[in-house]
Amino acid sequence: MSVERETDQAADQTGRTDQAEPDERLRRGQARLAEITGRSGAEVMAALGEVAPDFARYIFEFGYGDVYSRPGLELRTRMLATVAGLVCLGHAARELHVHIGSALNVGATREEVVEVIMQMALYAGFPAALDALMIAKKVFAERGLAPPEG
Amino acid sequence: MSVERETDQAADQTGRTDQAEPDERLRRGQARLAEITGRSGAEVMAALGEVAPDFARYIFEFGYGDVYSRPGLELRTRMLATVAGLVCLGHAARELHVHIGSALNVGATREEVVEVIMQMALYAGFPAALDALMIAKKVFAERGLAPPEG
Amino acid sequence: MSVERETDQAADQTGRTDQAEPDERLRRGQARLAEITGRSGAEVMAALGEVAPDFARYIFEFGYGDVYSRPGLELRTRMLATVAGLVCLGHAARELHVHIGSALNVGATREEVVEVIMQMALYAGFPAALDALMIAKKVFAERGLAPPEG
Amino acid sequence: MSVERETDQAADQTGRTDQAEPDERLRRGQARLAEITGRSGAEVMAALGEVAPDFARYIFEFGYGDVYSRPGLELRTRMLATVAGLVCLGHAARELHVHIGSALNVGATREEVVEVIMQMALYAGFPAALDALMIAKKVFAERGLAPPEG
Amino acid sequence: MSVERETDQAADQTGRTDQAEPDERLRRGQARLAEITGRSGAEVMAALGEVAPDFARYIFEFGYGDVYSRPGLELRTRMLATVAGLVCLGHAARELHVHIGSALNVGATREEVVEVIMQMALYAGFPAALDALMIAKKVFAERGLAPPEG
Amino acid sequence: MSVERETDQAADQTGRTDQAEPDERLRRGQARLAEITGRSGAEVMAALGEVAPDFARYIFEFGYGDVYSRPGLELRTRMLATVAGLVCLGHAARELHVHIGSALNVGATREEVVEVIMQMALYAGFPAALDALMIAKKVFAERGLAPPEG
Repeated sequence: MSVERETDQAADQTGRTDQAEPDERLRRGQARLAEITGRSGAEVMAALGEVAPDFARYIFEFGYGDVYSRPGLELRTRMLATVAGLVCLGHAARELHVHIGSALNVGATREEVVEVIMQMALYAGFPAALDALMIAKKVFAERGLAPPEG
Repeated sequence: MSVERETDQAADQTGRTDQAEPDERLRRGQARLAEITGRSGAEVMAALGEVAPDFARYIFEFGYGDVYSRPGLELRTRMLATVAGLVCLGHAARELHVHIGSALNVGATREEVVEVIMQMALYAGFPAALDALMIAKKVFAERGLAPPEG
Repeated sequence: MSVERETDQAADQTGRTDQAEPDERLRRGQARLAEITGRSGAEVMAALGEVAPDFARYIFEFGYGDVYSRPGLELRTRMLATVAGLVCLGHAARELHVHIGSALNVGATREEVVEVIMQMALYAGFPAALDALMIAKKVFAERGLAPPEG
Repeated sequence: MSVERETDQAADQTGRTDQAEPDERLRRGQARLAEITGRSGAEVMAALGEVAPDFARYIFEFGYGDVYSRPGLELRTRMLATVAGLVCLGHAARELHVHIGSALNVGATREEVVEVIMQMALYAGFPAALDALMIAKKVFAERGLAPPEG
Repeated sequence: MSVERETDQAADQTGRTDQAEPDERLRRGQARLAEITGRSGAEVMAALGEVAPDFARYIFEFGYGDVYSRPGLELRTRMLATVAGLVCLGHAARELHVHIGSALNVGATREEVVEVIMQMALYAGFPAALDALMIAKKVFAERGLAPPEG
Repeated sequence: MSVERETDQAADQTGRTDQAEPDERLRRGQARLAEITGRSGAEVMAALGEVAPDFARYIFEFGYGDVYSRPGLELRTRMLATVAGLVCLGHAARELHVHIGSALNVGATREEVVEVIMQMALYAGFPAALDALMIAKKVFAERGLAPPEG
């Protein structure tokens, strides 16, 4: 079952008839999600369909269709800022894994990701930065990104 | 009384004899602080001298001399990432005021700052982003930055 | 200048041409905002127009037009849950002021608001609950709500 | 070893002689805990006995005997507010698992739980809400609660 | 109106008849509060009486009568640990003001308070520590505590 | 590969030429780390070398060489304060495991650790304290520390 079909069902089951709402936001959001996260968001979306399909729809429409489709800031900087924000939240391990990957997907380097995380030790403390570096290490390994030579 | 003198005193009063430690980190940090924050960090530093002069020294040496003097990420992106992180902390109103200014100082535009803050609503929630936008508004007003035409 | 006009401008200045997007979400959201918060949200919206008019639009469209327009949970319970959540965030003083008022607006009693806040001491600690009770006290006083007799 | 016996021991070993203290709060708290959480709190309590039996006693006496035994707010709303609060804490995965179950135990529907969690995305951000939805999904599955038809 | 009388009223108005409950916890808690905080907690308690008198009673009974009356850790260390915890919460400015004073009341030195706060920069980040140092500075000034010579 | 060698490489690869910087801070920090954490920090450091060797160096130099080498507060109190702070962060499970061990290493008793954690329930809520007690239980078991008799 595709996510799109799930979200159509969601619209049905909540009894809303937003037929006038163009699917533009939804389509734009799904495309942006794919561009940014690659496949990594898809499993979460599939999982959400069972429990809260409208939440998946909000992520597509609002998260990616509205916010991440905005002009005014290049995507690479957006994703590095997101990594910084997630480090400071402290509890967002799953999101960090996804969006460290997203940052790399849209052109950030391994080094830039590490720099952003290290810098957050100043603001969120060393434990939050350390946890994030361990997640980054895992993402780098999954992608076969070699450590910088030294 | 200059901050430098305060921190010299601090070194004395803690009984440490780091004479071998070059003042390089301290000088580099103070220069970097000035470059990034302009004057806005100076009052806090002066204030710190009375209560915890070594803490001021750590900010200079570690914060700006070590972390903010690193290569590998351009300063404009560093400061936008810092703004993102501070929004997600939720409690860092004073730092947000300083570093929204810092982002502008190192070349970020008003629009980029607003984009980063708005985006954090996805991760830290609307109240944290809203508070940060109110602080940004104040910083923009202090600098006479006109809102974008519309 | 009405908020509606500001948000129209916002749409213009971001260069997006969501003309196909029905104004239904925006209108529904503004009506829901008025129903829930009374006037208390209006000043924030006006303030936002200068710095981030699209953010005001997201609050209307997504916050109130999407989320707070959902069926499945009565509004009184929604607002008491929101008060609980804001207490646990710890940093959301302004939102707490607004939404303690919102809870009263949609039928929660003074006693219910206090019970929810007190209960959060178990989860977020006494300082967060204490701060929220001080805000509640102010809201009650502004509305001339007498304390329960004893 | 029952939790009750452990907490008696705890009272002994701290040398306090609260003999005058009626066991009323303790009994009331244990009954309330059972009513609200079913069995799900019992393992944590058993585990606590080894490391901090007095903490188990405080949970019984203060948490359930005092706070959750208060009049003034129906239990169903209390538990939905607790779910909201725990989502906003961000780090309370275990408690979320227990109290999503508690909310269902005292009459909240699957749909109401999901609505409360989704709504918190506005205040605590999408990652905290997403993590909570994944926990809710697990709780629903453990109880054989079918997803709503669509 | 004394706090004690308010809390008696509170007991009445919630309809509970804890007459069997000895006032021992309440009295012990009030004495411990006075010993630890001096006068600084009294205004908050008075303020609470109007909005949530039972919450004041819980602070007395549970906070000070139970937790802060425990053996097993000297009071000076308890208060320094509390200062550390409050710095890491990030949002507890009022409590920090009270309990930096409490730490001094029970024998901690100005230097020890500053050391604990500075150390928390490692765990909660520099902004949280910096805010706490500014509060400490205010408390020291209110008490006429001279800065250490240097 | 020793951490020291990794950090030397790190200095090289970032192009900094801090040759004038004495290795004093680094050596002092590594010694202090060993004294406080025993072996428990070593694996994290080894792991860091691949992804962010400079971060390991900052932990040695700034964390242990600067902050934890300060006079003015006895080490036992420092570590109990750190445990308190980590409980209040909420997300620092790994660090709590390390530093509950550190507190025991520098002379704190099992009872003192438990007291500090329990006390934080007042400030950070019961879930954060409960999670920390479960971690403490694991550390105590790893060290064969018997529970207090009762």
